[in-house]
Amino acid sequence: MMSNVPYKIFLKEEEVPKHWYNLKAVMKELPESIINPATLKPCTQEELSQIFCTQMVKQELNTTDKYIEIPEGLRDFYRMTRPSLLIRAYYLEKLLDTPAEIYYKFEGTNTSGSHKLNSAAAQVYYAKEQGITKLTTETGAGQWGTALAMACAFYNIDLTVYMVKISSEQKPYRKAVMETYGAKVIPSPSDTTEVGRKILEDNPGTGGSLGCAISEAIEVAIKSENCRYVLGSVLDHVLLHQTIIGEETRIACEKYDITPDIIIGCVGGGSNFGGLIAPFMGDKINGKNNIQFIGVEPASCPSLTRGRYAYDFGDTGRITPLLKMYTLGAGFIPSPNHAGGLRYHGMSPILSKLYHDGYFEARAVEQTKVFEAATTFARCEGILPAPESSHAVSVAIDEAIKCRDSGEKKTIIFGLSGTGFFDLTAYKSYNEGTMVDYIPTDEDLEKGFATLPKI
Amino acid sequence: MMSNVPYKIFLKEEEVPKHWYNLKAVMKELPESIINPATLKPCTQEELSQIFCTQMVKQELNTTDKYIEIPEGLRDFYRMTRPSLLIRAYYLEKLLDTPAEIYYKFEGTNTSGSHKLNSAAAQVYYAKEQGITKLTTETGAGQWGTALAMACAFYNIDLTVYMVKISSEQKPYRKAVMETYGAKVIPSPSDTTEVGRKILEDNPGTGGSLGCAISEAIEVAIKSENCRYVLGSVLDHVLLHQTIIGEETRIACEKYDITPDIIIGCVGGGSNFGGLIAPFMGDKINGKNNIQFIGVEPASCPSLTRGRYAYDFGDTGRITPLLKMYTLGAGFIPSPNHAGGLRYHGMSPILSKLYHDGYFEARAVEQTKVFEAATTFARCEGILPAPESSHAVSVAIDEAIKCRDSGEKKTIIFGLSGTGFFDLTAYKSYNEGTMVDYIPTDEDLEKGFATLPKI
Repeated sequence: MMSNVPYKIFLKEEEVPKHWYNLKAVMKELPESIINPATLKPCTQEELSQIFCTQMVKQELNTTDKYIEIPEGLRDFYRMTRPSLLIRAYYLEKLLDTPAEIYYKFEGTNTSGSHKLNSAAAQVYYAKEQGITKLTTETGAGQWGTALAMACAFYNIDLTVYMVKISSEQKPYRKAVMETYGAKVIPSPSDTTEVGRKILEDNPGTGGSLGCAISEAIEVAIKSENCRYVLGSVLDHVLLHQTIIGEETRIACEKYDITPDIIIGCVGGGSNFGGLIAPFMGDKINGKNNIQFIGVEPASCPSLTRGRYAYDFGDTGRITPLLKMYTLGAGFIPSPNHAGGLRYHGMSPILSKLYHDGYFEARAVEQTKVFEAATTFARCEGILPAPESSHAVSVAIDEAIKCRDSGEKKTIIFGLSGTGFFDLTAYKSYNEGTMVDYIPTDEDLEKGFATLPKI
Repeated sequence: MMSNVPYKIFLKEEEVPKHWYNLKAVMKELPESIINPATLKPCTQEELSQIFCTQMVKQELNTTDKYIEIPEGLRDFYRMTRPSLLIRAYYLEKLLDTPAEIYYKFEGTNTSGSHKLNSAAAQVYYAKEQGITKLTTETGAGQWGTALAMACAFYNIDLTVYMVKISSEQKPYRKAVMETYGAKVIPSPSDTTEVGRKILEDNPGTGGSLGCAISEAIEVAIKSENCRYVLGSVLDHVLLHQTIIGEETRIACEKYDITPDIIIGCVGGGSNFGGLIAPFMGDKINGKNNIQFIGVEPASCPSLTRGRYAYDFGDTGRITPLLKMYTLGAGFIPSPNHAGGLRYHGMSPILSKLYHDGYFEARAVEQTKVFEAATTFARCEGILPAPESSHAVSVAIDEAIKCRDSGEKKTIIFGLSGTGFFDLTAYKSYNEGTMVDYIPTDEDLEKGFATLPKI
């Protein structure tokens, strides 16, 4: 026994939070509104409700309620997948010979292998309540599609996933999982939509893109009866659903008298990191703590550390509303990187505002350094981390080593958002020494910025 | 809240068992001895210790101690991976509309994805204690190799895995996981051993076999200094290590006042099922309960339901000691089946003896029925089960439906030994309707029986 804190902290069923934490109700200044690119005015609830479920839009626009209740019918699903474990990294501490206490919140034990399920289940639950019978979405690497397929199987809702064609060919197994859960998976671009047919006509043989898949999914959602589109990151309501991660962490910390000094998470669209830090950030905004928050992004796609705070489209297809966020430009093409979930040009508007106002810091890490940390972690803590999550591991190790050097006994918490079972091509390339780091030049970034809308 | 029993039963760290349960100390009649094929006499401790670690041999031959202490240095590892969850299948019960209470013990949340880690960690721990610096093993599908690689990384022991060549080509990702954990993976047959070179000379271009990989691994273990061979199933000491599954289940049952009527598990080599039932079986032998135990095997490889109780080699290469067990003959070639972990010609000698003496029943299930159950289970309980484990799911569903029809409120526990993340080829084939059932004819079986040693 190394301490009174067990290796795995598992909350009791009755301790699992019954509400989400709405950061916008606590922030001193709000993020700027979502704008309709046609009118350049803030999107109304009516406009957004054509694409998204009504409750999602209400949550997206809610700036007043600090706590939003998790409905009982959804807690029924969370009962299956939550709580996730908060794990004391005793073995990593020992290996690093650090006086720091390290904890990680592990979201990877469910079959989707990541935190994505928290929002997938919420969005499907609300769709069901609204009488929606069919949902559409897009998926690239497949994590989001898998999570959504699981939730749709549970609530008995039809799901069509537009999967980037080249991904569906390279990852037939991801497709097989989604189909096992009953989803219809269509490689995009396809001939099932107008936009798909047009793209195929203009670029026969194209491997598709996330932007194109989003366009197809939205077209179907708008044109079909009782159908809506769902999205897995970036937007405020998605971040809200992920705050169950942070709330569970806060409850576990209180239960075991853990006072974090540093909280670390990887950032792509931002919902995982935003969800983890939410209640702690709320307290920091109110002067109740002075936690150091660190968002970690890939050096190949550095939206926070090298991006601009500007209005931009959420998708490369330039069909979404405009969001004020840190962005590399919707036209930025990130160099190849194995952390597919972090290859996004923009950033959650909530996190962008908090970052702009100096509430947290960001670091960019190169992928070979990330995989070095991932391998160290896997060998001593047993879990094979997702490449995305390993960005957080890398900075947690850096901070623990700083503590070793300074003798400080800091408490570090990081988010381990998922497992790497479907990322073994990347591990293989790291093991074989063929992995390369890509860092965009200033010129590359300028090309991306040139695609920002002129408003 | 559907009942007082939480969805997930998670034992506290201090509740996790500190001993294994040695069934042989409780059995009325012992299984017959392991025999040396050269002398036809029982293997001595000295003979077995040339291949296996000393403590493993002692445990293999121990018939007197009912409880065997799990050493503290090993509990340190188990702390990371145990307890596993006992889950109340509320959603499956609801779907089946059954009065039965269904529970499953889920061994799949660790990175190896199965129960294999329980014995891998134990064997590596004892090797370390003995001053062994290098271990060898074989792996087919890769689960065992992965578990062993994880344990060797933790205890800092060199590991060489002989992986059936065709598997290493078909499953490069499994190889990548083992390498991430620091193991050396050699496709078998290889030119690193005499037996491998001979096989390559006789059969250039062969895809290898488990029998051949075992021969290579044992040759290296015998010829190298401070090196031993480790095995992941069948033998008594492996089953012993897996009894931590049953002990945890027993403790959880006592804590929540759960009285099982039926306990179900899949059987390949038998260590998973044997480990799950051990303490309950011990009580049954002593007349303290009348639980119905059901071992489930694939119809394509029916060692219990259609095999013979005879002495046989443990491997197709016919180099191991002889074991008295239910067997289809070491020369039996199972028809293609996606549950690789159950494609074994023999059966644990302990289970074989218990089966022979009528302590449990066996059922054989066809793979399309197994995948139908797996899909039903995945969609309502969220977890994607391994094809092996899905054999248990299938019979659990059958029994729950019987309860619905009869109105009986039985308590059913089954072992969910692992996840299906690396088995998506099989799910794909089931989804696409191309999966075929194979059942050996009596003639096929006779061919296998003809390979039994004449002793």
